[in-house]
Amino acid sequence: MSETAYLPAPNPDFMREAIRLSLAGMQAGHGGPFGAVVVKDGAIIARGHNRVLLTQDPTCHAEVDAIRKACQALGSFQLTGCDLYTSCEPCPMCLGAIYWARPARVFYANTKADAAAVGFDDQFIYEEIARPLEQRQLPMQQLLRDEAQVAFREWSERENKNLY
Amino acid sequence: MSETAYLPAPNPDFMREAIRLSLAGMQAGHGGPFGAVVVKDGAIIARGHNRVLLTQDPTCHAEVDAIRKACQALGSFQLTGCDLYTSCEPCPMCLGAIYWARPARVFYANTKADAAAVGFDDQFIYEEIARPLEQRQLPMQQLLRDEAQVAFREWSERENKNLY
Repeated sequence: MSETAYLPAPNPDFMREAIRLSLAGMQAGHGGPFGAVVVKDGAIIARGHNRVLLTQDPTCHAEVDAIRKACQALGSFQLTGCDLYTSCEPCPMCLGAIYWARPARVFYANTKADAAAVGFDDQFIYEEIARPLEQRQLPMQQLLRDEAQVAFREWSERENKNLY
Repeated sequence: MSETAYLPAPNPDFMREAIRLSLAGMQAGHGGPFGAVVVKDGAIIARGHNRVLLTQDPTCHAEVDAIRKACQALGSFQLTGCDLYTSCEPCPMCLGAIYWARPARVFYANTKADAAAVGFDDQFIYEEIARPLEQRQLPMQQLLRDEAQVAFREWSERENKNLY
């Protein structure tokens, strides 16, 4: 039996709350139609929705918003044992944020293809990130690696550092 | 002549400032050894460094921190015409944030292989994101797409919406 067999079944009501947030945020003019909740021990501990337009912060997607708030609620930068319910499959930025926050599972409703169909760039960004640097549309160039290595060497040599 | 030929040459002093921030943030215990600056019209408009441990926010990487601050400074969720200098090649979350913010160019010093060598998960996350959902180590499951589609349909039908 796999480890996940011991996890509770997904609760559709949590997804309905993420969907409700996606509608409410859009209707309020905060940003696109995206909502998310973080659940721990059967209860919602944080709610997020896209607030890119409200905050002028391009990183304030629903999942990032919910992850930040859940971490504040827990006093931890890790969402161990938590589930994330999001009204749409995460974009690469949000998926990266999810990996850093390390929840147990992710449930999503709309797909990234659905998001592309209503005008969001997720698919383009997925394709770009998978390409080698020199083949990306975004110009990326290396500078001063030798000087930057000083910080990495000092990090390596530090004792009792808090890894994340 | 390519379009980028008209852009100014990279300025090593901006990278040195990103490197200085990477060291200062680590030494202050704010997080890992990562710093970044956003430059517009030849001047730094925002500085960021990794503050994951200080803020308990797993999304507060140097680039995300610098992007958020630059957008606040400009009053815009877009970094049109800006350059981002970062002391390390961006992780997938930060690279996603960069694509959403749309700066003109990215300059980096350490590579993602360098980051992996000192204990950061960037390479693992790059590999995971490139995999189909069902092959990822993170369990991801779809729920209630039909209900979530309501928000996407409403978005599609909205007039004068602010696309981003």
